[in-house]
Amino acid sequence: MNNILAINAGSSSLKFQLFQMPDEKVLAKGQIERIGLPNAVFTIEKADEKDEEVSNISNHEEAVTILLRKLQASGIIKSLKEIHAVGHRVVHGGERFKESVIIDDQVIKNIDEISSFAPLHNPANLTGIRAFQNVLPTVPMVVVFDTAFHQTMPESSFLYSLPYRYYEEYGIRKYGFHGISHQYVSERAAELLGMPLEQLRLISCHLGNGVSITAVQNGKSLDTSMGFTPLAGVTMGTRSGDLDPALIPYIMERTGKSADEVIHVLNEESGMLALSGFSSDLRDIEARAEEKDKRAELALEVFAGRIHSYLGSYAARMSGVDAIIFTAGVGENSDLVREKVLKGLEFMGVYWDPVLNQIRGKEAFINYSHSPVKVVVIPTNEEIMIARDTFRLTV
Amino acid sequence: MNNILAINAGSSSLKFQLFQMPDEKVLAKGQIERIGLPNAVFTIEKADEKDEEVSNISNHEEAVTILLRKLQASGIIKSLKEIHAVGHRVVHGGERFKESVIIDDQVIKNIDEISSFAPLHNPANLTGIRAFQNVLPTVPMVVVFDTAFHQTMPESSFLYSLPYRYYEEYGIRKYGFHGISHQYVSERAAELLGMPLEQLRLISCHLGNGVSITAVQNGKSLDTSMGFTPLAGVTMGTRSGDLDPALIPYIMERTGKSADEVIHVLNEESGMLALSGFSSDLRDIEARAEEKDKRAELALEVFAGRIHSYLGSYAARMSGVDAIIFTAGVGENSDLVREKVLKGLEFMGVYWDPVLNQIRGKEAFINYSHSPVKVVVIPTNEEIMIARDTFRLTV
Repeated sequence: MNNILAINAGSSSLKFQLFQMPDEKVLAKGQIERIGLPNAVFTIEKADEKDEEVSNISNHEEAVTILLRKLQASGIIKSLKEIHAVGHRVVHGGERFKESVIIDDQVIKNIDEISSFAPLHNPANLTGIRAFQNVLPTVPMVVVFDTAFHQTMPESSFLYSLPYRYYEEYGIRKYGFHGISHQYVSERAAELLGMPLEQLRLISCHLGNGVSITAVQNGKSLDTSMGFTPLAGVTMGTRSGDLDPALIPYIMERTGKSADEVIHVLNEESGMLALSGFSSDLRDIEARAEEKDKRAELALEVFAGRIHSYLGSYAARMSGVDAIIFTAGVGENSDLVREKVLKGLEFMGVYWDPVLNQIRGKEAFINYSHSPVKVVVIPTNEEIMIARDTFRLTV
Repeated sequence: MNNILAINAGSSSLKFQLFQMPDEKVLAKGQIERIGLPNAVFTIEKADEKDEEVSNISNHEEAVTILLRKLQASGIIKSLKEIHAVGHRVVHGGERFKESVIIDDQVIKNIDEISSFAPLHNPANLTGIRAFQNVLPTVPMVVVFDTAFHQTMPESSFLYSLPYRYYEEYGIRKYGFHGISHQYVSERAAELLGMPLEQLRLISCHLGNGVSITAVQNGKSLDTSMGFTPLAGVTMGTRSGDLDPALIPYIMERTGKSADEVIHVLNEESGMLALSGFSSDLRDIEARAEEKDKRAELALEVFAGRIHSYLGSYAARMSGVDAIIFTAGVGENSDLVREKVLKGLEFMGVYWDPVLNQIRGKEAFINYSHSPVKVVVIPTNEEIMIARDTFRLTV
């Protein structure tokens, strides 16, 4: 038996899940939030127990030390030797990382270099990696990239119609995100369909606060809605998605904002929040839409409409589709969004069952059995993907 | 009989077509180019004759005077009284103009106010209008807007996912363009199909140097690919189309350009020109792609691929499609682009005939007769639309 710790580090947080491999049993999971801020919160769950502690944790290294001490104190592991390897999620792997890799100095250096593509994420991910390296210097570690799955996209998908040197010199291209999630649900969909992934045309809808849609052909990402950054694609919680680029200087001129400030508005104050006028949370918006609030109805219509259009677009991309997957918070739980997304797709062979569609947060097919295109809800599990790759590369 | 002069004025050009209405006979057509520059070129065609003259024409008023003198000298009309009305194409009508209108001072003022949305086009269009007003002060005139047809789009199509006040205060929304062309081919498609336009779901592909795709449901524009400006949507001759907005500040930082300069690159140095590396002209690119030039092949694939995806997207938008229309330079003439755009759409009922597809520049169905979705090539005719509206409003 080998225990693998799967880590997702943010700038002031650290999420963890401890797996017993290869049987993929979750021994413990939890998170540390508000690292470096007053009153950090440590939460840990194992079996049926849930424990929460508040204290001051000044940095990620201290967070790691506390986490490891807690894992031993609570009897989940007897000694640190029982942690076989640590797997880290890193958002951006650029073009260099097409798959997960064992961490060495060169890998760290490369992730650092790629930080200009993901200035909010990669440095935070690296902070987590360095903290573990300091505390567990002899334990092998692996990085799993959120962009890697999309590295199979052909040039005609990933190239923008911009001067070619922008790609060659500045690395400007579509990278795509949520790759770990899209890969997980694609593999799981193939299992549920009882068909080889290599023979399937799938459309994976990762609908959370961030949203990305991916066309997965024969197990490979063929195209995805997010782009150079996670701002691109469809309307999201607070993000605008794709726009007429000429709007940027126009908004700058009208508001007196800098280009960076406009992008901040597009990332933080747009999307469903802007359309509804009161919340980025789909649950709030659904509640108000039920009360016939016009702006809430509009937000829902735009949100679902953009995803609906992508289904047609990616079906065209693959000359048809075998299954549509819904995952992540909204995809797993909102029957209303799924209904609006799926309505009117009979012309391309999608026949869904309103009764089955009431499912929440569980694996289930929601199509009629005669539907040529299957529709399936699959809760995502990025942690298990991190654990699997880490186990595979270190055993 | 009434003669209507249809005018399309640019900053240094003036295109004209003289129609005899209501039978829509073209009495003469031509253009004046390089107005205000040395060696302006005046071209006029009538029946089988074509005439070209080079001289210096200092402004639009002089151009109009020369045009009217020429129409009389060549015997096309006997006196200026035979010009019943003049119709002018204006690019941007904002939200104010939902249809063509007779020109008065208020209309001129409004078009001028809308110029901030189309700084390259509306002022040039106005120059043409004013020149005709000075030379033909008593002749009624009409403006026909390139945006008007799209004013039927619902809020869920035209609103960006941006702070709502950007729409209310700054008029930021999708306007759409090529409306005169989309409307013409939609009406003509209904005639050719022998069905009422009000019962059809059409996708109109206007593929020229500028490209826009429109979903036309029951005769009304439901959604269109261009946006706040004609930069948006798919890859075009020199335009990038939609992008991840976060690219703008990134390109600014990397190249040292201002936001306006970046948009200039996106308008003038991007698209097919950037992808191919040598030309924005599809004929050049097709020729090189035939010689297996990689970048030419890439440009073709991206160009056709984006349009192909839009067909799926807009079919989803309308829960299916009855007919797909190709128009404008590329749409009317390139069988290769049409082939690449249509290939693999059998899943949504599109069965096209490679032999019929060889048609160039003529009205023709190119689908197999058993195809549920019809595909039709229709040469566009914006001038006749201008003449029709002008005749209707002034007789």
